[in-house]
Amino acid sequence: MTSVITLLTDYGLEDGYVAACHGVIARIAPQARIIDVCHLVPSGDVRRGAAILAQTIPYLPAGVHVAVIDPDGGGSRRVVALEAGDHVLLGPDNGVLSWAARAVGGARAAYELTDEELFLKPVSPTFLGRDVFAPVAARLAAGREPAGLGPAVPLDRLVSFPAPTSLVRGGVVEGEVLSVDHYGNVQLSIGAGDLASLGARPGSILAVRLGRRQLSVPFRETFAAVPPGEVVAFTDSAGLIALAINSGDASQRLGLPPGAHVRLSPAP
Amino acid sequence: MTSVITLLTDYGLEDGYVAACHGVIARIAPQARIIDVCHLVPSGDVRRGAAILAQTIPYLPAGVHVAVIDPDGGGSRRVVALEAGDHVLLGPDNGVLSWAARAVGGARAAYELTDEELFLKPVSPTFLGRDVFAPVAARLAAGREPAGLGPAVPLDRLVSFPAPTSLVRGGVVEGEVLSVDHYGNVQLSIGAGDLASLGARPGSILAVRLGRRQLSVPFRETFAAVPPGEVVAFTDSAGLIALAINSGDASQRLGLPPGAHVRLSPAP
Amino acid sequence: MTSVITLLTDYGLEDGYVAACHGVIARIAPQARIIDVCHLVPSGDVRRGAAILAQTIPYLPAGVHVAVIDPDGGGSRRVVALEAGDHVLLGPDNGVLSWAARAVGGARAAYELTDEELFLKPVSPTFLGRDVFAPVAARLAAGREPAGLGPAVPLDRLVSFPAPTSLVRGGVVEGEVLSVDHYGNVQLSIGAGDLASLGARPGSILAVRLGRRQLSVPFRETFAAVPPGEVVAFTDSAGLIALAINSGDASQRLGLPPGAHVRLSPAP
Repeated sequence: MTSVITLLTDYGLEDGYVAACHGVIARIAPQARIIDVCHLVPSGDVRRGAAILAQTIPYLPAGVHVAVIDPDGGGSRRVVALEAGDHVLLGPDNGVLSWAARAVGGARAAYELTDEELFLKPVSPTFLGRDVFAPVAARLAAGREPAGLGPAVPLDRLVSFPAPTSLVRGGVVEGEVLSVDHYGNVQLSIGAGDLASLGARPGSILAVRLGRRQLSVPFRETFAAVPPGEVVAFTDSAGLIALAINSGDASQRLGLPPGAHVRLSPAP
Repeated sequence: MTSVITLLTDYGLEDGYVAACHGVIARIAPQARIIDVCHLVPSGDVRRGAAILAQTIPYLPAGVHVAVIDPDGGGSRRVVALEAGDHVLLGPDNGVLSWAARAVGGARAAYELTDEELFLKPVSPTFLGRDVFAPVAARLAAGREPAGLGPAVPLDRLVSFPAPTSLVRGGVVEGEVLSVDHYGNVQLSIGAGDLASLGARPGSILAVRLGRRQLSVPFRETFAAVPPGEVVAFTDSAGLIALAINSGDASQRLGLPPGAHVRLSPAP
Repeated sequence: MTSVITLLTDYGLEDGYVAACHGVIARIAPQARIIDVCHLVPSGDVRRGAAILAQTIPYLPAGVHVAVIDPDGGGSRRVVALEAGDHVLLGPDNGVLSWAARAVGGARAAYELTDEELFLKPVSPTFLGRDVFAPVAARLAAGREPAGLGPAVPLDRLVSFPAPTSLVRGGVVEGEVLSVDHYGNVQLSIGAGDLASLGARPGSILAVRLGRRQLSVPFRETFAAVPPGEVVAFTDSAGLIALAINSGDASQRLGLPPGAHVRLSPAP
């Protein structure tokens, strides 16, 4: 059986760091297939890493999914392995795994990594990806059970990001900017169903309120449905409402960083 | 038998988009080997994608080659599978496959993708790579015949970019800028044979006319044959004449974007 | 047996160059596994390539390791294959392999690549990675012996970078900036043992002298041990002393490019 390990880090691609992780895995579990999820997560941006993993994992094969976005790497946070669906999620207990676990049905067990026999010695406190995460992922892929890594962690003690929320009231749906992709497309925490409950359908015009500003924005099937340079709303590949500018950067031009508050309603 | 799938997109590497395509393929065709051709094609630049694929495919194993440069993704263009040489090319019918098909002997059959049973449902109109191209490529790699994807398309109805042309007359060869690589090297539509027919050989000096400007440029085996900062012409890795600046950006400094007109002749 | 080929180049990721190398290997040695070490080495930066390979190879599986950082590619330098440890290192004889060979125990034999039967014809003088290095690496991975590539080269005739040195005298350790990673972390040629021999331990304060400037810098387990924006010294993942700024670019802010001279001592 082929086992799969996926890797998400903020290591960038300008050094040999990702290759060292691949190498450690290939030496311990030569049969494991490695899929790189992303290595260009902005340095230490746990929330962005969590969003990328959560939106990708539904399309990944069963396997061990490693997320090394770990700004407190030398600090006191635990390293945990979560069992969720067919998957094992491995990473620091800082929230980076929480949305992904939810996306595949929720964690049903968690274990703290304490068996240092599995680590590569000496462990460099500045390269846990190579010395801790990669060798442990390789052993999991080679058949080791997560329960053998260390003590169970009660699920309600795991660090979790709050689920991105939206609220429908008075004919308006409120939410926030969940994530911005490298095109500058702004993904909201508002699902397509929320808009539909207000009667908005592709083809409608939306009233978009950003603080005191209000825009009229066409709601279309895709961003290509408007001329270059124009703002458009559409249902993105994760089923969420996104604001984009055809051939432009919506986050920058509309001033919408992650966390910014947004209200949508069908235009009168 | 190992089957090969290659991927060319403009998805960038800052999100999980490429990984989602890898994941979809790995779930359907776990035995297929995936080779990433390039994911940093400038967004929507069909011509640049076409040039990269055409210049790479002669070196790729027989397989299914997917090109998702699809600025009209939600629009009305067809998705097609072309049979050419040992290869199947899969992509939008917007020209992105046309130069690659020619590079491996020309398409001998084309089919429009209409069997939606092969797609991942629901299809996100903004992520056809994941929901349409990846699952179809995986099924082709797993043995499905292109003829089973949908109706045949007459070859003369496919959208094709005109073959880049050069013209030799009056002791001068005329052509255009075909492509600019990330070093800023300017690749012309002029083959090494055209220059040879005028008597120019590595070691000669060329007269290079760019609009009203004229430059004397040494024609050498490689760009390293001139001092840093100097302009040089050489035969590039695709057998075409390129203008470069050793340790510099020729496209920018000479003002030569794709499509610009260039005339070459041996210097008197 | 699975054989492994690793690739280090300065080709960048914006073209199909890396994919062409993968393709050539996959056609000749379909069973070989390819690990990309790094393709974003600054163009022609042999020293940076040498540092990345040397610091990664201890974690890579036994295999053929190819380094194409070759600014004199069309020139007169030899191409060599070195046997060192379980590995074969393949690259131009310009020093790029020298630190890596030392990192795995030193070269015990070297051969000059002269058997052009192994090359892809016609060889493009501007793309030796595709036409020379990839096919030769594939044949080595498929079982060919390095001794069959061409004549032996005396080990003392290989181009080698001097080993990065440090000098302990008068209670001070002197060294130089070995490498700067993409975070801007400054890696010194000073090992953790040198500092320990002066009595400095994590928790100490160091006197850091950069030319005429002197800084007091905390020596900690990791860069995360100081507040964002502050300078810190720590033992990096290669066992060397590094200067970093938590969430900042130390090389830029301290004015420390590769080669700059640095002296460290325990603060009085």
